[in-house]
Amino acid sequence: MNAKAKKYVDMFRKVKIASAATVDEGGHPQTRIINVMIATDDGMYIVTSKGKPFYKQLVKRGEVALSAMCPDCQSLKFLGKCRIVGKEWVDRVFEENPGMNEVYPGKSRYILDAFHIYEGHGEWFDLLNYPISRESFAYGGEEVERNGFRISDKCTGCGICARVCPQKAVREGSTYVIEEEHCLQCGLCAEKCPADAVVRLHP
Amino acid sequence: MNAKAKKYVDMFRKVKIASAATVDEGGHPQTRIINVMIATDDGMYIVTSKGKPFYKQLVKRGEVALSAMCPDCQSLKFLGKCRIVGKEWVDRVFEENPGMNEVYPGKSRYILDAFHIYEGHGEWFDLLNYPISRESFAYGGEEVERNGFRISDKCTGCGICARVCPQKAVREGSTYVIEEEHCLQCGLCAEKCPADAVVRLHP
Repeated sequence: MNAKAKKYVDMFRKVKIASAATVDEGGHPQTRIINVMIATDDGMYIVTSKGKPFYKQLVKRGEVALSAMCPDCQSLKFLGKCRIVGKEWVDRVFEENPGMNEVYPGKSRYILDAFHIYEGHGEWFDLLNYPISRESFAYGGEEVERNGFRISDKCTGCGICARVCPQKAVREGSTYVIEEEHCLQCGLCAEKCPADAVVRLHP
Repeated sequence: MNAKAKKYVDMFRKVKIASAATVDEGGHPQTRIINVMIATDDGMYIVTSKGKPFYKQLVKRGEVALSAMCPDCQSLKFLGKCRIVGKEWVDRVFEENPGMNEVYPGKSRYILDAFHIYEGHGEWFDLLNYPISRESFAYGGEEVERNGFRISDKCTGCGICARVCPQKAVREGSTYVIEEEHCLQCGLCAEKCPADAVVRLHP
């Protein structure tokens, strides 16, 4: 895993409390609070038990979205693929998270399965400090996802985008430039550009 | 709104920091950290801006799942329906959440829309205290959702379910009874029952 992804995977583990979102059989979003139990160079590990809808959704779709709030008010989000791994990972989860023994004492732990989130991409976002900042990461062969906007060569240099930007994240130039890492992705520049030069990065 | 739902809607607002999950155009789960901006007798209100995939997903599907961690380590989850309401709700959000003015100063706030989560159902879950507890709630005409398991009249009274239950949430009787509000929903009783008497409540 690259160092940037490792930093954020470790952050998920450090925060530990995350939300995990899945899609249910009816195509609806479902989310619940979980713990990121283990983070390694190969990804993240979570557990859940066979009786839960969450388990069925993980097995059926093989994917999970995570989000978490860091103590200093920065947020993480992530979408990844997952699969069940051997029961030795349940044991390792209980070793590294001894509180689990109170919830699943003795052999009852084996009603749980461990899911390895073996690839995915995500974003760290800091809305609290000025300028706001974001950074994308990916591991396991996935590519970082780019959202937000860029300014095309249709730009006439009128500067309206820079004036309306709530975060002053547009740099002046013959063609203006959106500083992606400081962009709210609110879309106000796209809405106000008279030359229709602001293009969405993600369809 | 009934008093029970109001208690949990107010808890979402009090915690404020929640994760919001949606389903994207490819059918994948997506989640990010948001704020529950307003809670009233009619539901919850959130905001997002037109440039974001989150906005498009909310508009297209009209639904959102929320989860949150309460300070005393209890968790909330919720699935509801939402629709855009008038810009006066954006103003009200900024009145009740003045920190928003730093992110979207002046008139830039109107690139946001407010979404009213007008109905939904959810669950509060306390995994930290023994016995673990859960409580379901719903508002806006939706019904509470029952998950987990119940024991049918195929029960022979052998007591294996009660012995294996990690949380001792099965009451003895001629037919044994699962205390739903204290059930982990792990499914171990269903797996071990020799009479196949433990039935899933939700298909």
